[in-house]
Amino acid sequence: MMVKSITSPSNPLIKKIASLNDKPKLRKETESFVIEGKKEILMAIRGGYTPSVMLFNPVIVRYNQLFDLYGEVLFSTEMIEVTNLVYNKIAYRETTEGVMAIFKQRKTNLPDLSWTSDTPLLLVAESPEKPGNIGALLRTADAAGVDAVIIANPTTDMFNPNIIRSSVGTLFTTQIATATTDEVIHFLKSKKLQIICATLADNALSCYKMNFKLPTAIVVGTESSGLSETWINAADYNVIIPMGGQVDSMNVSVSAAILLFEAVRQRKH
Amino acid sequence: MMVKSITSPSNPLIKKIASLNDKPKLRKETESFVIEGKKEILMAIRGGYTPSVMLFNPVIVRYNQLFDLYGEVLFSTEMIEVTNLVYNKIAYRETTEGVMAIFKQRKTNLPDLSWTSDTPLLLVAESPEKPGNIGALLRTADAAGVDAVIIANPTTDMFNPNIIRSSVGTLFTTQIATATTDEVIHFLKSKKLQIICATLADNALSCYKMNFKLPTAIVVGTESSGLSETWINAADYNVIIPMGGQVDSMNVSVSAAILLFEAVRQRKH
Repeated sequence: MMVKSITSPSNPLIKKIASLNDKPKLRKETESFVIEGKKEILMAIRGGYTPSVMLFNPVIVRYNQLFDLYGEVLFSTEMIEVTNLVYNKIAYRETTEGVMAIFKQRKTNLPDLSWTSDTPLLLVAESPEKPGNIGALLRTADAAGVDAVIIANPTTDMFNPNIIRSSVGTLFTTQIATATTDEVIHFLKSKKLQIICATLADNALSCYKMNFKLPTAIVVGTESSGLSETWINAADYNVIIPMGGQVDSMNVSVSAAILLFEAVRQRKH
Repeated sequence: MMVKSITSPSNPLIKKIASLNDKPKLRKETESFVIEGKKEILMAIRGGYTPSVMLFNPVIVRYNQLFDLYGEVLFSTEMIEVTNLVYNKIAYRETTEGVMAIFKQRKTNLPDLSWTSDTPLLLVAESPEKPGNIGALLRTADAAGVDAVIIANPTTDMFNPNIIRSSVGTLFTTQIATATTDEVIHFLKSKKLQIICATLADNALSCYKMNFKLPTAIVVGTESSGLSETWINAADYNVIIPMGGQVDSMNVSVSAAILLFEAVRQRKH
């Protein structure tokens, strides 16, 4: 096993990693991205992603520990030891675990999605804006055990470091497709899923009147402007979470959680 | 109506406002805090808070508009016009509405809490850490229409600008008491509320087995370490939200939302 070493923060590879974190355009051009953190890298490997280069700070973590964790995939990964100085330059997080890796992107299209359940449960988010919200949606979707997540009309690339971090790695273990809103609606109808759109309209049905035991896609919009008319018109049901306070909206990941777990409750409890 | 004017960013009042936002210690010593934004100020006034000084940028908002919004409370408020330069120095948010005000703090103790319902629903959070999480908890509690929120063993003061912002003003319209964990447990038992603690223990009961129609306090812990043993031992029920994915935890405001809205569902739907 051959481990290279980098001691200079101005090494081209170190500069490239910093740029991959900051520049969506470079991620797109190179079809690659960076993951930082032991657990997130493990979840990516389990999810079928393959690292091309792995950097580690031997002051924090040793090769043997990484091999115990990741196994033989490291034989086909370029392994590079870096100094404290170099590691701190590219570490994205404040509390860090001494390891990061470059991975190849994978793009999932609608036809790639598959599930074994007769009554699939999908979460669809239209144009979610903040990386932190997208990560929180993925984390909640994982907890609810959804069959897939679809991002309609995405406005940001999914390999943004803030999405990876706030999803706590569920970005890599959940099936996530991206497509236009029109394509997604066509797909859901062809799969015979009922489309349940979360709205804030007073005349919408209570979400507690829904039968979530049917094959279902729960659709949520942006926090700033909600779902587009296209979704409202395509919905089988537009529903509202009945609220009793001073403000009339909730964070999108909170709304999605309430709807997804109402489906979980009806299905399993 | 007399309106003063401040044109220098080094004016002592301007410096004081900047410090009130940044320094918890100064907030504590002066028992005052700053609110920025039209709606948040309105919610504070509706919640019984009184502004002592209000600053506005007449390029963005005029006195008459503020009077239409807030009414006669402005007669007893020192009103100060500031220039763009001054306003931008102290504005905390990127998109701003041209108005901020200094308010007097109010501290709510456990005996101050009151409710009219025979079956109150309370949210208790033990030592929540991140201001953004605390604000999100308050926003969710408002949406669920809880009777009160209690922060046990607080680690941060509630008038942190990030709490105000992420609570979208519900900090001022919800009853929120702070006390030690021991005091809170004693209070809940004296009021004959069942104590339902959210845990991640596999042997905990499913939250869907609970009867939330009884007088109830839902208790959530910190995201990093969960609830203390004191709470686990004091609980009438330790419950878990059944999860089906790769990760075994959710954001604390998401967990609280699922439990609170299960109570809402059982009570009203």
